Amino acid sequence: MPPPTNAERFELGDVVLQHGATLRDAWLGYTTYGELNADRSNAVVYPTWFSGWHTDNEWLIGPGHTLDPEQYFVIVPNMLGNGISSSPSNTPPPYDRARFPGVTFLDQVDAQYRLVTERFGIESLALVTGWSMGAAQTYQWAVRYPEMVQRAAPFCGSAVTADHNKVFLYSLAEAMRADATFDGGWYDADDLPVRGLRAFARIYAGWGFSQAFYWQERWRDMGYSSLQDFLVGFWEGFFLDGRDPNDLLAMLWTWEHGDVGNTPGFDGDTAAALRSIRCPLLSMPAEKDLYFPPEDEAWSSQFIEHGEVRVIPGVYGHFAGNGENAQDTAFVDAGLADLLARPGYTG
Amino acid sequence: MPPPTNAERFELGDVVLQHGATLRDAWLGYTTYGELNADRSNAVVYPTWFSGWHTDNEWLIGPGHTLDPEQYFVIVPNMLGNGISSSPSNTPPPYDRARFPGVTFLDQVDAQYRLVTERFGIESLALVTGWSMGAAQTYQWAVRYPEMVQRAAPFCGSAVTADHNKVFLYSLAEAMRADATFDGGWYDADDLPVRGLRAFARIYAGWGFSQAFYWQERWRDMGYSSLQDFLVGFWEGFFLDGRDPNDLLAMLWTWEHGDVGNTPGFDGDTAAALRSIRCPLLSMPAEKDLYFPPEDEAWSSQFIEHGEVRVIPGVYGHFAGNGENAQDTAFVDAGLADLLARPGYTG
Repeated sequence: MPPPTNAERFELGDVVLQHGATLRDAWLGYTTYGELNADRSNAVVYPTWFSGWHTDNEWLIGPGHTLDPEQYFVIVPNMLGNGISSSPSNTPPPYDRARFPGVTFLDQVDAQYRLVTERFGIESLALVTGWSMGAAQTYQWAVRYPEMVQRAAPFCGSAVTADHNKVFLYSLAEAMRADATFDGGWYDADDLPVRGLRAFARIYAGWGFSQAFYWQERWRDMGYSSLQDFLVGFWEGFFLDGRDPNDLLAMLWTWEHGDVGNTPGFDGDTAAALRSIRCPLLSMPAEKDLYFPPEDEAWSSQFIEHGEVRVIPGVYGHFAGNGENAQDTAFVDAGLADLLARPGYTG
Repeated sequence: MPPPTNAERFELGDVVLQHGATLRDAWLGYTTYGELNADRSNAVVYPTWFSGWHTDNEWLIGPGHTLDPEQYFVIVPNMLGNGISSSPSNTPPPYDRARFPGVTFLDQVDAQYRLVTERFGIESLALVTGWSMGAAQTYQWAVRYPEMVQRAAPFCGSAVTADHNKVFLYSLAEAMRADATFDGGWYDADDLPVRGLRAFARIYAGWGFSQAFYWQERWRDMGYSSLQDFLVGFWEGFFLDGRDPNDLLAMLWTWEHGDVGNTPGFDGDTAAALRSIRCPLLSMPAEKDLYFPPEDEAWSSQFIEHGEVRVIPGVYGHFAGNGENAQDTAFVDAGLADLLARPGYTG
């Protein structure tokens, strides 16, 4: 099925990107949940993740969750490149498809900053949170706009993309490119590189959940009848479900280039960028996450004055942060509740 | 470069395989190191691993190693499918290339048994040992010929291929197949699916070494100048170096179907098969092996009367068992020495 069409649209105009290109007539697709209160103090930014749409964040929003729209005004901006905001698949020539420029997390967050300030007049955020690439955007918010972020809660993601993580990303991209139908990104929209996409999905399957998840056949809890049913039904199904290959590779580019050290003013010094974070930051990596291991978050946390790492236990690995089971969701919810109960940074 | 040509050849004749096909005029390529002593009591079988040739085992054999040819007679049989023994790439029609039949670990070990008994008249083995798929063959030896194996030392491998491990294997195969040049295995020998092979190599790169190995840039210790240099120079170089795609997939098939429970007499009961092992068995998984995690060996070991698990510490992951650094090699060597110093099972 195609991406959801219920996003609001925020026009960015011509955006000069960190790596030099200008993305003309760019826009963000976004949704909001709840109402902004009178003093604009209840806003939460919750960006999307690799290949996710705003609707894919809704498992953590609602009555009974910490992000209850009765209390918070939750803004979910779609990442540039995800097929809803400006992306290879929806940008007109000449920056369409394989020519879509590289967008960094800084570009993502600067665009979101404009959405938040220009459209809503918000000057301070109660919380920024996100899973995976959403976690990277969370870190980027805390480094780029330290005076604006009261609290940050990245989960299953990192401030800098580790080399091992990049190797995983390279393997995904190379599998897609091994399918000649991909044709350097110039495939026809009605003749997708399906073999490449399926290989992509199977690579992802090995990384997304832990060894123990498979050993315990926990895919049964997710409604699949066999290992192959999980690989085809969940994984291939997901990536064949309206996900455009060029969009996927554009997001991989963003992910690969993740490093808060490349925020202006830090000259590539990741530790210095982390030291500049003012707000309490609760990182929740998953115990058995194979590409964002808890060790990486322990490393980052040492530089953050009010940093804390709280490891999500269990076997779901990276997908502990995707609402796949009630226990992990409760853990993330509790972490957000604890953080929001504490005083935030307000300058 | 093509596979080494210095292997001895042992003719198997027509081999009826476990899954029903007959591999006609089959053979094993093998090498030996040292001399068989007069009472034939110093023989060691040390099978090859996925995509490895006999020469790739030599890092663990020699003066200063436990497997010193001055003391032991080390037999290295090449796996069926590896390009030196009967394989898709060297079998004449009609069982050539994509039609090469599925060979199980049982088939492998039964062929090796014939080599050991018929050519050398050996009735008892001081040790069977091997890395990765060589470890699976080691387990298979101990289950299939319990009266013949005095000691077993599988390292970085398992008695049964775990589902998560299979997911990794599926991703490799799917990446190869995503390259249309592969053409279901009917590619021309002079027009290899190079893109598929390179994707294959990059997937492997993420699994072969641990997250911490990459974080610490330990590829520098292996002589590579950058992450990309390691991915291209080591990984792509390895799989482009005379490794035939159909051979690789044939070995993946063997690996995928690994389970000592499928030895005749055990009717799929892996635990019962492990309980039948008579000899001391020292398993050495690597602490950070991503596809043969130590947990799996702890599971197997509980069923083995004289089983012991000794975890190779450090960050090399699966490649702790491939002679990539002196510390891990010393650990494996010491494990083999300890085991050989103990009385073996002799009935």
